[in-house]
Amino acid sequence: MIIKDFSSFSKFLFELNPSSIFILSDTNTLQYCVPILIANIEILKEAQILEIEPGEESKSIEIASGLWESLIEQNADRNTLLLNVGGGVVCDLGGFVAATYMRGISFINIPTSLLALVDASTGGKTGINLNQYKNSIGVFQEAKACFIYPEFLSTLPQNELRCGFAEIVKHYLIDSEVSFDKLMFLNPFEIEDWSEIINENIAIKKRFVQDDLKEKGKRATLNLGHTVAHALEAFYIERGRPVLHGDAVAAGIIIESHLASFCNQKLLSEICFNQIFSYITEIFPRIDFEISDIDELIRLMKHDKKNNQSNITFSLLTKPGSVLLNYEDKELEIIKSLTYYLENV
Amino acid sequence: MIIKDFSSFSKFLFELNPSSIFILSDTNTLQYCVPILIANIEILKEAQILEIEPGEESKSIEIASGLWESLIEQNADRNTLLLNVGGGVVCDLGGFVAATYMRGISFINIPTSLLALVDASTGGKTGINLNQYKNSIGVFQEAKACFIYPEFLSTLPQNELRCGFAEIVKHYLIDSEVSFDKLMFLNPFEIEDWSEIINENIAIKKRFVQDDLKEKGKRATLNLGHTVAHALEAFYIERGRPVLHGDAVAAGIIIESHLASFCNQKLLSEICFNQIFSYITEIFPRIDFEISDIDELIRLMKHDKKNNQSNITFSLLTKPGSVLLNYEDKELEIIKSLTYYLENV
Repeated sequence: MIIKDFSSFSKFLFELNPSSIFILSDTNTLQYCVPILIANIEILKEAQILEIEPGEESKSIEIASGLWESLIEQNADRNTLLLNVGGGVVCDLGGFVAATYMRGISFINIPTSLLALVDASTGGKTGINLNQYKNSIGVFQEAKACFIYPEFLSTLPQNELRCGFAEIVKHYLIDSEVSFDKLMFLNPFEIEDWSEIINENIAIKKRFVQDDLKEKGKRATLNLGHTVAHALEAFYIERGRPVLHGDAVAAGIIIESHLASFCNQKLLSEICFNQIFSYITEIFPRIDFEISDIDELIRLMKHDKKNNQSNITFSLLTKPGSVLLNYEDKELEIIKSLTYYLENV
Repeated sequence: MIIKDFSSFSKFLFELNPSSIFILSDTNTLQYCVPILIANIEILKEAQILEIEPGEESKSIEIASGLWESLIEQNADRNTLLLNVGGGVVCDLGGFVAATYMRGISFINIPTSLLALVDASTGGKTGINLNQYKNSIGVFQEAKACFIYPEFLSTLPQNELRCGFAEIVKHYLIDSEVSFDKLMFLNPFEIEDWSEIINENIAIKKRFVQDDLKEKGKRATLNLGHTVAHALEAFYIERGRPVLHGDAVAAGIIIESHLASFCNQKLLSEICFNQIFSYITEIFPRIDFEISDIDELIRLMKHDKKNNQSNITFSLLTKPGSVLLNYEDKELEIIKSLTYYLENV
């Protein structure tokens, strides 16, 4: 359920009637977003605050354990409600902590980053990282509701906007020819009112998640670019200098689109690949791995949740609005596409 | 789904067609039970073994993390199957690890203790302990199947049999007058063939769990004796000398039946209470807490998952086959019943 104004949200909370409310936030959202919520929603004045450090490192079993302990110490019970106020890290971690505390308490996501607004806050994926393996521990559990307040975006630095925009690129690519054409004229740094784009993107995501919460079929369309992206992210977490999820997704879309275009079956037209390549490289920075890192990237892709042990599986674009699921590659073609990226971006 | 013979189980595993199979066992079941399974089920010869120490201490976040890491290192993917071969600890822990690994892989319980046969292996409760708080982290997730092989009971010491028998006492109390009468003539140490009793008890549990997996209503009937039992267990874990779950449940049934019989409403007849008291004290040992420990026990009961922050909630027997759910006590009456136990058992 999507809620878009303070009075509806107050009413929703009142009717839910939780025994207590906890707000999970990071240092940034605690400063910039939580006060706005408390000022506008009476019932939140009594909420208890849980604070974590911003950044992917907080999606760990140690932080999750600390939150479980805080909930117990502060007498959270089965009717307690958790509000996750933050970006993807807060929503993923908070969703996991809530879904497993006392075998599951309710949670509401209040996304404050563009990425979380269009992606992490809806769809029921919760999770934490195990060492360098992203989201390898988690459950599927939908939030009780999602409260959307686009004004939070004004608190964000530009690289955070860019990061969220990568999922918007993905959504418009998989949606339709019309969305693709629209995308080619969008410059994320010149958009003033995000409301329409956010609404469209939540609707696109919803279309693919509906009836497939557990990713058995069409939901896999949303993995476009993500097989490579997750490997890149894991690779840089291992080295102690994480890359932004959106930048990894942007690189992933280029590399996987190259694979689609230049694999034996030539799934995607070269013209379309070139359009995608030019558009993304205008907006997103190059990820600077090296030829000698490719073996490790392949190993990490094999460990992706979506893959079995020998093949690597991709969701590949065949044309705007159309994706081939479960394309299996035995390494050779993806090595060529990774190399192409290094030599041409 | 309950499976009762090796050939059906082999067929089930063949049709499930997992990408790989892992067997979670403890030191005891690895020695006494896993070889029997492997000798009788061809496909298990290729299974990979995960081993934990026996005992409640293994139901920890550290052990769960270690198992997640082993699964990743040994390339378990989303189509991997986990077989939990052991008692309640192995089934609860293994179920939690499977339900959260890559947002959920399939698991099958193969209970080897009487307690797990009649209780822990079915019903979808998975979980681990957080410090002294029993099962405070977990999810509801049903096993894909449960393989029942009563011959495993012959490998058990007598106190383990007694432990499982406490849940059988509970099941027969909540089931019907007929079951109650049958119970009064059962001596767990003289039973040679457990098959019929196991089947009856799984059926009784199933009746209360059906349509209420998440414990919103009638499933709470199964909590009879458990509000006190969980507090006793947590109390002794804190002190480094855990009591057997069954012994705690037996004490819990006595104390909560006393509460039912001597609270203001006099819910349970004194005759019935006396029958229960005599029967249980014949079979189960006294739990030797002291008057000065009662405050701490009350505090622990308030932290029980089933309770909100001020009242303590009980499922109280009103007569054999009939239980009052959500009886709320504000401490005074339960203190009297705890004191009665200390002075009379």
